[in-house]
Amino acid sequence: MAVKFELIKECGRTKARLGRLHTAHGVIETPVFMPVGTQATVKAMTPEELQEMGTEIILSNTYHLYLRPGEDLIREAGGLHRFMNWDRPILTDSGGFQVFSLGPLRKVSEDGVTFKSHLDGSTHFMSPERATEIQMALGADIIMAFDECAPYPSTREYTEAALERTTRWAGRCKEAHGRDDQALFGIVQGGMYKDLRERSARELVDIGFPGYGIGGLSVGEPKLLMYEMLEYTVPLLPRDKPRYLMGVGSPDCLIEGVMRGVDMFDCVLPTRIARNGTVMTSRGRVVIKNADNTRDFRPLDDECSCYTCRNYSRAYIRHLFKAEEILGLRLTTIHNLYFLLTLMKKVRKAIAEDRLPEFRQEFFAEYGYE
Amino acid sequence: MAVKFELIKECGRTKARLGRLHTAHGVIETPVFMPVGTQATVKAMTPEELQEMGTEIILSNTYHLYLRPGEDLIREAGGLHRFMNWDRPILTDSGGFQVFSLGPLRKVSEDGVTFKSHLDGSTHFMSPERATEIQMALGADIIMAFDECAPYPSTREYTEAALERTTRWAGRCKEAHGRDDQALFGIVQGGMYKDLRERSARELVDIGFPGYGIGGLSVGEPKLLMYEMLEYTVPLLPRDKPRYLMGVGSPDCLIEGVMRGVDMFDCVLPTRIARNGTVMTSRGRVVIKNADNTRDFRPLDDECSCYTCRNYSRAYIRHLFKAEEILGLRLTTIHNLYFLLTLMKKVRKAIAEDRLPEFRQEFFAEYGYE
Repeated sequence: MAVKFELIKECGRTKARLGRLHTAHGVIETPVFMPVGTQATVKAMTPEELQEMGTEIILSNTYHLYLRPGEDLIREAGGLHRFMNWDRPILTDSGGFQVFSLGPLRKVSEDGVTFKSHLDGSTHFMSPERATEIQMALGADIIMAFDECAPYPSTREYTEAALERTTRWAGRCKEAHGRDDQALFGIVQGGMYKDLRERSARELVDIGFPGYGIGGLSVGEPKLLMYEMLEYTVPLLPRDKPRYLMGVGSPDCLIEGVMRGVDMFDCVLPTRIARNGTVMTSRGRVVIKNADNTRDFRPLDDECSCYTCRNYSRAYIRHLFKAEEILGLRLTTIHNLYFLLTLMKKVRKAIAEDRLPEFRQEFFAEYGYE
Repeated sequence: MAVKFELIKECGRTKARLGRLHTAHGVIETPVFMPVGTQATVKAMTPEELQEMGTEIILSNTYHLYLRPGEDLIREAGGLHRFMNWDRPILTDSGGFQVFSLGPLRKVSEDGVTFKSHLDGSTHFMSPERATEIQMALGADIIMAFDECAPYPSTREYTEAALERTTRWAGRCKEAHGRDDQALFGIVQGGMYKDLRERSARELVDIGFPGYGIGGLSVGEPKLLMYEMLEYTVPLLPRDKPRYLMGVGSPDCLIEGVMRGVDMFDCVLPTRIARNGTVMTSRGRVVIKNADNTRDFRPLDDECSCYTCRNYSRAYIRHLFKAEEILGLRLTTIHNLYFLLTLMKKVRKAIAEDRLPEFRQEFFAEYGYE
């Protein structure tokens, strides 16, 4: 079954949309937040826990899985879904972002990128064709083109060269791709240059993809600049295709992204800060190790109905963190993911009821702007 | 409700017994293995996971909870059951074993033990009265007397002095204890000296307890010596009271202990080795990181029906361990606990069917003797 996007409703007052993404492993309601399972596991979670909290799709990383355990092993296991016991949709990124983040450990040519593994220093080569081939072996429902992500800040010259290469490589990915049950998304680059964003969007749309990633944002620039770039980029993407803002996952960025027409998001933020003992609550962030939680027998968030908040006190979770017990970070991870997934549910409801701007205002009045 | 032991059946061919231990938080079928939750959490597990695998009672440690978060906080939380979200029975040890294990960090007098915390070096004092008071605040269903455990090997003189003190302290614990919903167990000491074991058992039975721990075993002595000591000690304990062999949890010791009349066991072994990637299977131990599991898509144990074995391959679990992912040790912990709890279920069934010696033989033919 081919992946298909169904546009359900457009908000009259913002650029937000409601949609449904149909895949071989189920339907995803958009706008959606995707928890990240870098190494074929969303850190500290089981698939059942992810499902119970309402996860519809997860992201996994081609770069990491290619290096360990290798795509051949995952193919032999029957594909990534079966290997990790997750039968709902999966999106894999292409490894482009990771490979370009390696800095002096990589060498770029038109053909592809030679890089050294962060695990053992061994030398590897990744190209649009290889990235696509690996993602076909992994078997995710949505895969991403191999792109060059310019860091922030970058010169106009470098940003332009990177976007041109990204366009050429996107064409080669499309050429190399051959699985009907997978959708290959292109990735818009162009850094913080309005006209380059527009050019990248136009060139990728010319090649034609069933969905578009927006890359090169949330790389260190001010949030207002990111929002501005979204305002230039999104309107140039086809109305009937999903738009995926890569690597973004704070509550404010999710809401602001949705209002600018984004349908999909992913980020390690909720799981990473959870493991450090920071949780998101309806009244902002809470650092669980702080002394004022010592004898606080209330839940993390008294408006939350996740497994953690239904069963455990701040005092207990603080004890678990002080004692370095694994259950502590399991409970905060459950809570943070539930918080973001529930936020997206509320956002979808607000779009459906034509009250997204009001919802936004109510949310930030309590949560604060990060 | 007072704790009550019901003797259901005695094996005609061995000293094994079937029983039921009634507590305010539910009934425990004996012989039973108790998973250890040292710091108010069985490492890496939720209460629901423990229940799903058939856990009837867990053990927690007074020494650790006294130091962190402190018994006052747990009392304020509504007791240990509520603090940790576990509504089935709990047994707490007295802290005696931990305090005496501190070596040069402690000083013993007739009154009690002065020791330095392993956490921050602060000085503390523990006595029979304090250990009992703390355990009353924690509120476990079964609590243990504060005893002096002689290391192995120890001289006859020291072992005798330790057992005499253990008897006197057991009397003081009974005096200090005042909760009807808790059972206080005495602890038999006497090291590896047959007559001292007998003397300790007799003296404690004279004081009179609703159950008896057998301490000072599994402290480094050969297993056959431990079995010998059990053979001397157990027959001197009252038939109608439960006997608890402390700190023992390998499959062979469980079976051999049951055959010598033991009703209860606890040990960190299954959870500790699980976190290091070693699992117990019907054909012996498996080290999951070993290279021969790399492409092994079978479960850890194809005769096992735990959550892990129903859903994951050795190859995937090995990948999780190589990638240092938390889900890996969650899966092996679930498996090892399920393995031991299921072993005890089979042992109880074998006693009921008068075939424990045959079961023992069948089990070791496959598992091997550790």
